Amino acid sequence: MTTRSWWGWGTVEDAVTPEERRALVDRVRAVLPDADLTFHEAPDPATLDVPASRIEPRALFSTDPVDRLAHARGKAYRDVTRNLAGEVGQVPDAVARPRTEQDVVDVLDWCASNDVSVIPFGGGTSVVGGVEPRDLGRVVTLDLQHLDQVLEVDPTSRAARIQAGVLGPSLEQQLKPHGLTLRHFPQSFEFSTLGGWLATRAGGHYATLYTHVDDLTESLRVVTPQGISESRRLPGSGAGPSPDRLFLGSEGALGVITEAWMRLQEPPRHRAGASVRFASWERAVEATRLIAQSGLHPANCRLLNPAEAFLNAGSPSSVLVLAFESADHPVDALLARALELCGDGEVVEGAARQWRKSFLRMPYQRDAMAQHAMITETFETACTWDRFAELHANVTAAATEALRQVCGIGIVTCRFTHVYPDGPAPYYGIYAPGRWGGLTAQWDEIKAAVSEALVTSGGTITHHHAVGRDHMPWYARQRPDVFGAALSGAKAALDPQGLLNPGVLTTRST
Amino acid sequence: MTTRSWWGWGTVEDAVTPEERRALVDRVRAVLPDADLTFHEAPDPATLDVPASRIEPRALFSTDPVDRLAHARGKAYRDVTRNLAGEVGQVPDAVARPRTEQDVVDVLDWCASNDVSVIPFGGGTSVVGGVEPRDLGRVVTLDLQHLDQVLEVDPTSRAARIQAGVLGPSLEQQLKPHGLTLRHFPQSFEFSTLGGWLATRAGGHYATLYTHVDDLTESLRVVTPQGISESRRLPGSGAGPSPDRLFLGSEGALGVITEAWMRLQEPPRHRAGASVRFASWERAVEATRLIAQSGLHPANCRLLNPAEAFLNAGSPSSVLVLAFESADHPVDALLARALELCGDGEVVEGAARQWRKSFLRMPYQRDAMAQHAMITETFETACTWDRFAELHANVTAAATEALRQVCGIGIVTCRFTHVYPDGPAPYYGIYAPGRWGGLTAQWDEIKAAVSEALVTSGGTITHHHAVGRDHMPWYARQRPDVFGAALSGAKAALDPQGLLNPGVLTTRST
Repeated sequence: MTTRSWWGWGTVEDAVTPEERRALVDRVRAVLPDADLTFHEAPDPATLDVPASRIEPRALFSTDPVDRLAHARGKAYRDVTRNLAGEVGQVPDAVARPRTEQDVVDVLDWCASNDVSVIPFGGGTSVVGGVEPRDLGRVVTLDLQHLDQVLEVDPTSRAARIQAGVLGPSLEQQLKPHGLTLRHFPQSFEFSTLGGWLATRAGGHYATLYTHVDDLTESLRVVTPQGISESRRLPGSGAGPSPDRLFLGSEGALGVITEAWMRLQEPPRHRAGASVRFASWERAVEATRLIAQSGLHPANCRLLNPAEAFLNAGSPSSVLVLAFESADHPVDALLARALELCGDGEVVEGAARQWRKSFLRMPYQRDAMAQHAMITETFETACTWDRFAELHANVTAAATEALRQVCGIGIVTCRFTHVYPDGPAPYYGIYAPGRWGGLTAQWDEIKAAVSEALVTSGGTITHHHAVGRDHMPWYARQRPDVFGAALSGAKAALDPQGLLNPGVLTTRST
Repeated sequence: MTTRSWWGWGTVEDAVTPEERRALVDRVRAVLPDADLTFHEAPDPATLDVPASRIEPRALFSTDPVDRLAHARGKAYRDVTRNLAGEVGQVPDAVARPRTEQDVVDVLDWCASNDVSVIPFGGGTSVVGGVEPRDLGRVVTLDLQHLDQVLEVDPTSRAARIQAGVLGPSLEQQLKPHGLTLRHFPQSFEFSTLGGWLATRAGGHYATLYTHVDDLTESLRVVTPQGISESRRLPGSGAGPSPDRLFLGSEGALGVITEAWMRLQEPPRHRAGASVRFASWERAVEATRLIAQSGLHPANCRLLNPAEAFLNAGSPSSVLVLAFESADHPVDALLARALELCGDGEVVEGAARQWRKSFLRMPYQRDAMAQHAMITETFETACTWDRFAELHANVTAAATEALRQVCGIGIVTCRFTHVYPDGPAPYYGIYAPGRWGGLTAQWDEIKAAVSEALVTSGGTITHHHAVGRDHMPWYARQRPDVFGAALSGAKAALDPQGLLNPGVLTTRST
C-alpha cells in the first residue's frame, strides 16, 4: 500500500530520497552558485484553512476537508507551488465516488436539480488546471476511482470493455491473463485513468502511428445530462462525423465517460533499438523527419536536443532514441533501414536506458526542486516540418528571454515525444532559479510568454497535455471561431445548464 | 474530351461496348435462361418534363433544364433506374458554379436571404442520395467544379493546399511535378472530388492503416452561414475535440468544404503482391484476420468470397489479394510473412490482375445490365471480428431471402474492401433479374431488408459510402441519440436556418 501525495506528484513512498535530493541540489549549485536553494517543507494539509462545504453530506458524497483539498487541483507545477505555499483556492464542496454507472447518473441528476457544477476526476494528474474549480459556485468533484474493472474481453477482435476509472497498472494487470495489452503508457501511467486519457486525448507509448489514445478507441459510453451515449463497436465507419471523436478530448465538458471498448494488442516479442548521436541539431531533425516519413513506424523515435541529452541521457549532443517492436515478426531490418536514414549519425550505447530512468523520475524531481524554489516545468506542442525551425527558434528565444527577465537565468531543453510524416511534437523543459513566495506568478509569466510564441508560430497549444483552464486563452485563439460555435452548440444540447466542468473548452454562458 | 453520362456512371465514351454488352448478356442468359433481358435505351433528357425553375437567373446560376437534371441525382442503382425510366423527381432550381471562395460565401448569403436550400455538389457520384433534393422547397445545387487547383505544395512536410472541387485525376496530375501523390483512389476516383471525399469520409487505396481520407487530412477550410472555419495545419493535436473530425463526414450539412491541406506521400518504388486461394471461406477469413492484426500493414488485403472470385477473378474459391508497397524500403519480407500467416492457402496467378480489371468496369456494367432489367448493386459495412460470422450469415440470408421474394432468384457475393485489427469492412454485391418498370421499388425492398440485417447484426450502415438520404432511417438508429442531439446542436449553431443539404444527417427542423 502506498499513499498519494496530497501536494505533489505520485506517492509519498516514491518521492525523491534524501540522497537523490542532495545530488540534485549539488548539481544545481554547481551551475548556479548564487541560487538560494533553501529547503521548504510542504505544509500539513490538516492545518490549512479549507473553506467549509456548501453541500450537505449525503450517500456517496465526502465533504472531508483534506479529501476535498486533494481533489482541488491537478499536478501542474503551478499546482505544486500553490500547495507548497499553503495557498488554498477554491476546493470542491464535495467529492462524490460513484460505485456504479447509475450512481453517476444520480449524481448528475442531483447536481442538475441543485444547480451544482460537476468536475469529472480520474487520477487527478492534469497539468493544465483541468480538474480545478476556478471562479465557480458550488462544485461536486466526481471521482471515478471505483469504476475500475475490465468488464469484458473479446480475444478474437482483440478488444476489451473497460471502466473509465481504472488506473494504468490495474488495467494492464487485468488484461495480462488474456495475453493482451492496451500498450498505452503516458508518463502519468501509474496515476492516471483510462477515462482521463480519453477525455484529454492522452499521448502514449507509440512515437508514430498510434500516438494518441484516440487511435486505440473502438467505442465510448458517456453519461450526459441528456442521457447516455453509447457508440457502436466498429473497427471503422463512414456514417457521419465520428461520435467518438466528439467526446475524445471533451475534457468532461460534454459528459462523463464511464466505459470504453479499447483496441488491444499482443505484447511485443521482437524488439530492436539503438541511440544515434548527431553532429548537429539540424542534421538530427532532418534524419528524424526522414524516418517519420519512411513508413517504418518506429515505436520509439525520441529526439533529444543537446541540453536535454546532457541533463537526462548523459551526452551533450543531439541524440535520437529509436526502437522497433512487434508481436509478429522480427524488426531488425526496420531498425537497420532507420539507421541508414540517420546518415553520418553515430550509434551510441546507454543513452536510451539512462533516458528512460530519468524520464520516470522527472515529475518527482520537479517537485523536490520546487521545494528549493527551482522552476522546473514543461510545455509541448506540434507543428508541421516546414515551420519547425522557425517555431523552435521563436519558442526557445521567448522562453530564454522570459527566464532572463523573470529569473535572471535559466536553461531551455527540447525533445520530440512523437513524430508524424508531416511534423514533430516538440516538448520543452525549462530549469531556472525561482523566488520562494513568487514561484506561481513567475511560472505564469514564463508560461504566458512561451504560449504566445507557440501559438503565433503556428503550433498547437497542446499536443497531449489537454486544454484545461490554463490553456484556454490560447486555445480560444487557435480554434476556429466557427468550430467553437459548433462545440458550444453541442454543449448547449447535452448540458443546457452548463454544469459540466465549466470554464473548460467552451466559455461558460452565465 | 469526354462527355459525362447524364443518367449513369462515368463518361459516354467509356460505357460498355456492344461486344462487352453482348458478352454480359450471354453470361446472364446462361445462368438465367428465362430472364427477360430486353434492352431499354435511356431517354433523351431533352424530352423529359423537367419542372420549371423557381429561381430567377443571375450571375453564376444556371437554370438550364438538362444541367439541372444532371445535378438532380447521384449514381446509385436507384438513381440510374429512375433516370432510365424517365422518372423526373425534384430537380434543383438552379446550379451555381462559384469561381472563387467569395462566390461560395455570396451564394450562401443569397440563399440565406431568400430561404433557399443549398446542396453542395462535387463529382455527383453519391450512391446514397447525398446530392438529391428530396421533398424540399427551392434548392440551389452548388457545383464546386471550378475550384479545382492545387494552390500550394509543402515538400518538406509533404502536404498540399488543394481546392475541394478538383477531380481525382487532375489532383494527381497537379501533384506529379512535385514527385508527390495523395494516393487516395476510391472506385469513383475519376469522377469524384476531394471535397466529396472529405464530406463523405471516403475509403481509398489502402486496405489497412490509412483507410479513410480522414487519415490524410491535415486541415480543412469550410464556408458556413456563420463564417469560415479554418483549422490549423497540425500533424497531431490534443487541443479539445478535433475540429476536422466534425466536418469530415458532415455531408454538406454543416458547411461547404472549399480547401484542405492534405498529407501526401512519395509514389511507391518497392512493391510485392500475391493472391492466395483458400480451401474454405472460414480459413480465408481467419488468415485475413491474422494479417490485419500482424502489424504488417498491407496496402491491399482484399478477400473475395467464392461467388465474388468466380464472377470477377476467374476462380471459384475464396481468394485473398495481397499487396505491399513502399517508397522507402523493400517489402518482400513483409509479403513473405503475410503468406506464412495464410497457412495452407495456395498462391495463385492472375487473380489480382483480373480482379483489378473487373473492379474498374463494375459501375459501367451495372448500368448496362440495368438496361436489361438486371438488378446489380452493392452495399457495405464494417463490424468487429467476433461478430463477423453472424453478421455475414444474417446479411447473406436476408439478401438471399429478399432476392427470392422480390426477384425469384439471385446471387449474393462478398468481399472485404478494408481490414482493421479489430474487424473487417465487408462489401456485398447482388445480382438478380428484375422487372422493367419496377426496378427501383424492387431494389428499395431488397435494400431495406439488408440494411435491417446489417444494423441489427451490429454493423455500421456504411463504412465508406456515406449516409445521404438513403441510409437515414438506419443511421438514425445506429447513432447514439445523445450524439444526434449534439450534432443537431452544432448544426443549429452553424446553420440556424437549416438550409445546408436538409434531410442529411440531422432531421430537418421545419
